[in-house]
Amino acid sequence: MFKKIALLLLFSFMLASPLYAETTEATTTETLNMLWIMLASFLVFFMHAGFALVESGFTRAKNSLNIIMKNFLTISIGPILFYLVGYGIMFGDTFSGIIGSDNFLLSGVDDIGFFVFQAMFVATCATIISGAVAERIKIGVYVIITIFMTGVIYPVVGHWIWADGWLANLGFSDFAGSTVVHLTGASGALTVVLFLGARYGKYKNGRVNVIPGHNIPMGALGVFILWLGWFGFNGGSTLEADPTLVPMVVATTLMASAGGLISTALYSQFRFKQIDASLALNGVLAGLVGVTAGTAEVSIPGAIAIGLVSGVLLVEGITFIDRKLKIDDPVGATTVHGLCGIWGTLAVGLFSVESGLLYGHGASQLLIQAIGVIAVIAWTMVTVGALTFVITRFTSIRVSEKEERVGLDISEHGSSAYSFNDTFSSKEAIQPNDAFGLADRLNQLSDQKAT
Amino acid sequence: MFKKIALLLLFSFMLASPLYAETTEATTTETLNMLWIMLASFLVFFMHAGFALVESGFTRAKNSLNIIMKNFLTISIGPILFYLVGYGIMFGDTFSGIIGSDNFLLSGVDDIGFFVFQAMFVATCATIISGAVAERIKIGVYVIITIFMTGVIYPVVGHWIWADGWLANLGFSDFAGSTVVHLTGASGALTVVLFLGARYGKYKNGRVNVIPGHNIPMGALGVFILWLGWFGFNGGSTLEADPTLVPMVVATTLMASAGGLISTALYSQFRFKQIDASLALNGVLAGLVGVTAGTAEVSIPGAIAIGLVSGVLLVEGITFIDRKLKIDDPVGATTVHGLCGIWGTLAVGLFSVESGLLYGHGASQLLIQAIGVIAVIAWTMVTVGALTFVITRFTSIRVSEKEERVGLDISEHGSSAYSFNDTFSSKEAIQPNDAFGLADRLNQLSDQKAT
Amino acid sequence: MFKKIALLLLFSFMLASPLYAETTEATTTETLNMLWIMLASFLVFFMHAGFALVESGFTRAKNSLNIIMKNFLTISIGPILFYLVGYGIMFGDTFSGIIGSDNFLLSGVDDIGFFVFQAMFVATCATIISGAVAERIKIGVYVIITIFMTGVIYPVVGHWIWADGWLANLGFSDFAGSTVVHLTGASGALTVVLFLGARYGKYKNGRVNVIPGHNIPMGALGVFILWLGWFGFNGGSTLEADPTLVPMVVATTLMASAGGLISTALYSQFRFKQIDASLALNGVLAGLVGVTAGTAEVSIPGAIAIGLVSGVLLVEGITFIDRKLKIDDPVGATTVHGLCGIWGTLAVGLFSVESGLLYGHGASQLLIQAIGVIAVIAWTMVTVGALTFVITRFTSIRVSEKEERVGLDISEHGSSAYSFNDTFSSKEAIQPNDAFGLADRLNQLSDQKAT
Repeated sequence: MFKKIALLLLFSFMLASPLYAETTEATTTETLNMLWIMLASFLVFFMHAGFALVESGFTRAKNSLNIIMKNFLTISIGPILFYLVGYGIMFGDTFSGIIGSDNFLLSGVDDIGFFVFQAMFVATCATIISGAVAERIKIGVYVIITIFMTGVIYPVVGHWIWADGWLANLGFSDFAGSTVVHLTGASGALTVVLFLGARYGKYKNGRVNVIPGHNIPMGALGVFILWLGWFGFNGGSTLEADPTLVPMVVATTLMASAGGLISTALYSQFRFKQIDASLALNGVLAGLVGVTAGTAEVSIPGAIAIGLVSGVLLVEGITFIDRKLKIDDPVGATTVHGLCGIWGTLAVGLFSVESGLLYGHGASQLLIQAIGVIAVIAWTMVTVGALTFVITRFTSIRVSEKEERVGLDISEHGSSAYSFNDTFSSKEAIQPNDAFGLADRLNQLSDQKAT
Repeated sequence: MFKKIALLLLFSFMLASPLYAETTEATTTETLNMLWIMLASFLVFFMHAGFALVESGFTRAKNSLNIIMKNFLTISIGPILFYLVGYGIMFGDTFSGIIGSDNFLLSGVDDIGFFVFQAMFVATCATIISGAVAERIKIGVYVIITIFMTGVIYPVVGHWIWADGWLANLGFSDFAGSTVVHLTGASGALTVVLFLGARYGKYKNGRVNVIPGHNIPMGALGVFILWLGWFGFNGGSTLEADPTLVPMVVATTLMASAGGLISTALYSQFRFKQIDASLALNGVLAGLVGVTAGTAEVSIPGAIAIGLVSGVLLVEGITFIDRKLKIDDPVGATTVHGLCGIWGTLAVGLFSVESGLLYGHGASQLLIQAIGVIAVIAWTMVTVGALTFVITRFTSIRVSEKEERVGLDISEHGSSAYSFNDTFSSKEAIQPNDAFGLADRLNQLSDQKAT
Repeated sequence: MFKKIALLLLFSFMLASPLYAETTEATTTETLNMLWIMLASFLVFFMHAGFALVESGFTRAKNSLNIIMKNFLTISIGPILFYLVGYGIMFGDTFSGIIGSDNFLLSGVDDIGFFVFQAMFVATCATIISGAVAERIKIGVYVIITIFMTGVIYPVVGHWIWADGWLANLGFSDFAGSTVVHLTGASGALTVVLFLGARYGKYKNGRVNVIPGHNIPMGALGVFILWLGWFGFNGGSTLEADPTLVPMVVATTLMASAGGLISTALYSQFRFKQIDASLALNGVLAGLVGVTAGTAEVSIPGAIAIGLVSGVLLVEGITFIDRKLKIDDPVGATTVHGLCGIWGTLAVGLFSVESGLLYGHGASQLLIQAIGVIAVIAWTMVTVGALTFVITRFTSIRVSEKEERVGLDISEHGSSAYSFNDTFSSKEAIQPNDAFGLADRLNQLSDQKAT
């Protein structure tokens, strides 16, 4: 009986979804665009490895596995939620310019390549939250937030700006997502962090204390991978293999990132008498976020200028948020994606060749950009705030102090990320800090269950 | 005299091979296909970095260099052997549907892009063995096995299934290699492991002991890289830039991997009350292997279902093999690539829209899939078993107990992977655990030779 | 007043540069070429991550951040300098076949994709220097050298060989840069190293001492990434999506790298009775550098032969330079890029199907190759030497002995790369060896400034 119901459900599920499409006669343009969108999708996918390495490298070793798990869960949950509801909300026929209303489970959708590309994007927005909440959020709570971010909250913003939504109709311009992805992610991150509170000991006795990251070179590789992926993130947002536009977008992306790094390096040299490596690494990301909105509309010097400003904003923003506001954001996500996301969005109103103030087009674009920024921050903070509040009615969103001290790898996952223990160990000798090889882990877990 | 012979050999060698081909008039379709196959080849190539990181991260630090060397040797030996004999065996004119009989040294072959793509695949099959035999096999023995795997054993399977072979004629369907690559590799791995025996101390006193991996985050990056590469692994198997099929393959690949991760996470939460990170990482791979056969023929929900099942099989398979069968497989390759390879192959007979049981096409495809699975397991275990047996007549296939205790990095390669020794050291102070910079290493080696 | 001047400067700057180009009617060929050049550009970009990991892994932990910073600065400074002056020098209308004379700030340049591809290349040449000067050069000095390398020195070489320059007119053949990139970089590296001197303690009391690298697996990942990127480095140098040439170039690249690894492994086994992992890793790079000049003109067996020779040259070259010449090159850049760059360039004169000695075309190509090698070494060593000499008139180019002992991470950047310190620490407890999380770092820097 149970089997029959399961099979029935399975069948209905399959019939409601787009099955393997028949191969139509391929046109050259179709194929060129497909190649480009697929390449871009792979690059954006790889950014998830970048996020995982950045977040892990800049936080403590005892939470490495937990951070990695949050990133793996995001890139798994995201595409599935997007398939179920998110795509429809984002790209379905519009209901009053607010929300999409069909295409759920991709019904009626032929362009699977476009779906794949957008699915990779969804998860990049959601994963911005994982860095800010690192080292103290319960993983189950993070999963719930990710489900809503990828299923509803981000798709609504995407609908407003990248589909038939009211902001698009207003003329709001965000080519690859300074607002849609980065500001949305950062607003969600900030909201959860406000509920979560700082890591234990961060602001003890009114002092702002230092919590060292365990592996900055790992973080640096993460930045390189994000940087690489960004060429697909921005470049793929052309949505077609345009031989003039794509190289221009890639060029402005490259120049802004270079500007961000150089600016942060010089500014930290000026401010602190040293080129700070951690800041410089994030300077690259700041420049990239900064150009993401206008990458198709700015000139090369405009892109450099955007990057230079991003670098300064990065340094000042992090100082302000960490020391003055005393908001604990372990990887500076609020500044990199939030403050620089706002900057990148407004920068279109300044530097866009087609509509920017500095090119004699007046301030109307700038005003439109500002409206969008405010609307998206409001929407995201209200929805994420409401969701988080509801969760707190049922459970604490953060692990206990003891679990936080021991580390989430042990507390949430029962193992460690690292072990230089060279000898094998019997069950009695297993220390909480021992990492376990794959097959071995089950052994210990089963034993624990038995005892 | 010796020089003349060498030059003569060199010349004959060159004349027998395809020289630099004249540029023909390029057609658009040819170029589109070339672009896609090249991109896919690069992605598959990069999987070798993924394999190296996964295997190294999940085993002990004292064997890191050895594992890396095995992976570098595989991606070097493989393409050369494939060029010499493997391609001909796999794609040459068939002899009774069993084996190819021409195209050796690529004679008569024009499509070099197709050769490159297939050459990258060859090595992925062979390298599956390197994880299972880690930490105790002699590197010279591994090299011999790799030569035969890439030169003969894998190409024969490839001939049966992806060329004019008997299994292809039977209607066996394995789009990207759940059987050809993964099951073949895993069958070879299992065979060698049966000869090799477990790592010292793994099953001591009837207990199943834990041997910790030294760097799980490194393993996680490896999984990300494999995941990225898999889009080329599955996607490139379309062999042409088909604008409808390629995105569908990429979509089902993504969905199955997401299903694998979520399934393993949930199942380990249910079974062990914790999301186990090591298992979850491998859950991604299990889902990917599971969809690799049917990626072009299943629907998106079908792909999710395949991934979900793969995740459960992963957990149960590793438990069974490690604890019940007491077969020591340090990275669970037999389960990830073998058990899930079988599942992925049979899943075509269930979930294929064109021929699967669940779509009303009866059980004949399922039966054909099973025949192929049995045939490939038999062929691979017999040939690899015979080869390994012959090797044992000449030498032990495993290092001595002392070498294993000290670690293969020192025993086989005379150096260590890691050193946090900050000061320089004179010759007398060199400890076996010191890693050596590139130029410095020769110094020590030369000195050792002199003494 | 200041604001008006700034705005004026900004405007003039923008007007002088190519603004966002109008989208022309795209042709299929244009788009195919764009796709290929973009993919190749991304691959070459990613090589910078590879360089960073190789250099960091093979040197000491206390200098990791510094090495990473040098690599990040190179890929940021390079494209901007190339945009300002380098592109014009390299590809502008020729002045007597010596130097380009227009296209500065890309004026008159439409093909932005070609610019992007070349900009990624520029930085790979400059970054070769960073490995050789590691662990003792002042970062400010490195930046100055990089500015001149990317702005003038490399572009002149590129003009001679890849534009309307005198070497190109002579028939010099260097398809992807064995000379233009690798030999130029290595010549610059050697020159600076001669000024710099060896690391403290390297050649103490007439002994050649060992300085261990801290993380060889990190270096191995770096090699894999360089290897991957090289397919774009060589493949993209076709500059168009040629469906016959591109796969041939990829095939010869793959085969030479395989030859390099196998040769180094076998040769070190023969010479030292062990397969040395560090040497083998660099053997891959040696093979790649070796085929980079002739990749489009050699056959597959020719490519294997080039790789095999590269491997032997690598082992012998490093021994000679480190032990006999007593020149301290921490990553062997002089051998990998210099000696093998010379070999690769001359190899065209031997192995080129179209013009090589071994194919019956006489020795004229070989002679032309040699002329180019000598000219480029001379140009680079003289210009870099003069520049470095001038710098020494103003400041020491190397850090103090104390700074070198403490490590450049602390000395130049005020923080460490690694920390396994699990507990948070107050300001008083901050040890120089503590790494700092992103936001935290500013705290300490500000405090230091106040005290």
